[in-house]
Amino acid sequence: MTDNTSHTTNDDASDVSAQALRLMLSRHNVSPKRLTEPGPDVAQIQALFEAAASAPDHGEITPWRFVQVPITARIQLGEAFAQALRERDAKATLEQLQSAQEKALRAPFLALAVARLGPADPDIATLERMVSLGAAVQNILLMAHAMGFGAGLTSGQTMNSIPLRELFELDPDDQAVCFINIGTVTKPKPVRPRPILSEFVSHL
Amino acid sequence: MTDNTSHTTNDDASDVSAQALRLMLSRHNVSPKRLTEPGPDVAQIQALFEAAASAPDHGEITPWRFVQVPITARIQLGEAFAQALRERDAKATLEQLQSAQEKALRAPFLALAVARLGPADPDIATLERMVSLGAAVQNILLMAHAMGFGAGLTSGQTMNSIPLRELFELDPDDQAVCFINIGTVTKPKPVRPRPILSEFVSHL
Repeated sequence: MTDNTSHTTNDDASDVSAQALRLMLSRHNVSPKRLTEPGPDVAQIQALFEAAASAPDHGEITPWRFVQVPITARIQLGEAFAQALRERDAKATLEQLQSAQEKALRAPFLALAVARLGPADPDIATLERMVSLGAAVQNILLMAHAMGFGAGLTSGQTMNSIPLRELFELDPDDQAVCFINIGTVTKPKPVRPRPILSEFVSHL
Repeated sequence: MTDNTSHTTNDDASDVSAQALRLMLSRHNVSPKRLTEPGPDVAQIQALFEAAASAPDHGEITPWRFVQVPITARIQLGEAFAQALRERDAKATLEQLQSAQEKALRAPFLALAVARLGPADPDIATLERMVSLGAAVQNILLMAHAMGFGAGLTSGQTMNSIPLRELFELDPDDQAVCFINIGTVTKPKPVRPRPILSEFVSHL
């Protein structure tokens, strides 16, 4: 191989690809309920975001950003979750509000993935920007898994709520998409089956 | 590790993560102009789609599919590209039409990534479906790179054109997002710099 974008020679390509496939196939979503300390350390978090930065990015506009939520900000986040629930359901019980609040306390590493959908030059279509965000998120999930952590995405109606948008100081063109949760897996769980190829692959 | 979602012990986690990061950082978009034969064989294509199938998928709705364009269908695709150009620019020259047509002939492996944005149960938001598509596409790109191939995404105004939608028999709720091009890299090219972490990472 003479290509400078390649990391490998033909000789070890089959090893590298076998390991890459193993990594991808063995990754599964882990609910934050099953994530505990320790989470990634500073160097590992740096690597997670370097992985994100290597996502494809049509037009080089970086149509996404990530906001980490350190442990010190979890109480605030929990209050935003509870407030969001109160705003969409005035009859929410105290138990429901507490449960919403506790969701902020789970995974050791927590970051919000934000799509930047405002004007850009070049003006890349929203769907393509989201492909870039999905790729960046996948790189983070794969890296976390490669490090031996469990990771999972969470979202819900809270993503569009005013308390959340205010806490994260989102611009009008910013869209909160999902939280990335990373930590040590407490207990295993059966993994979900993957879609069969014939269900999503065809040809002209 | 006792977690059955993990592929590794703590002992080799740092090797696995170092290799995963190398793979991600060394992957760069390769234009189809610089892709030639050979492309992936049948077993490799199977592995590419298995990688795609392991993307996160909130609600397990498989909000995407891929349509391969074999060499035998490239003339047809080229005609759709030319027709799409003609429809948006009645003054397109013969050279421009030929150039549009030739774009269909480049990479040995070519597949259209299609987002399925119609009704689903559960009804996952479009942005989240696109995260899943982006993750599936990223797995394909990383696998192709791990196999020693070059790969790149292409898109443009043609994606929304009637000739393309008709050729691929897209449902009204289907959205053509991008083509995935894979092949052997003919000549190296300087790689683009990645965004600096401080440009897209912050914390509460």
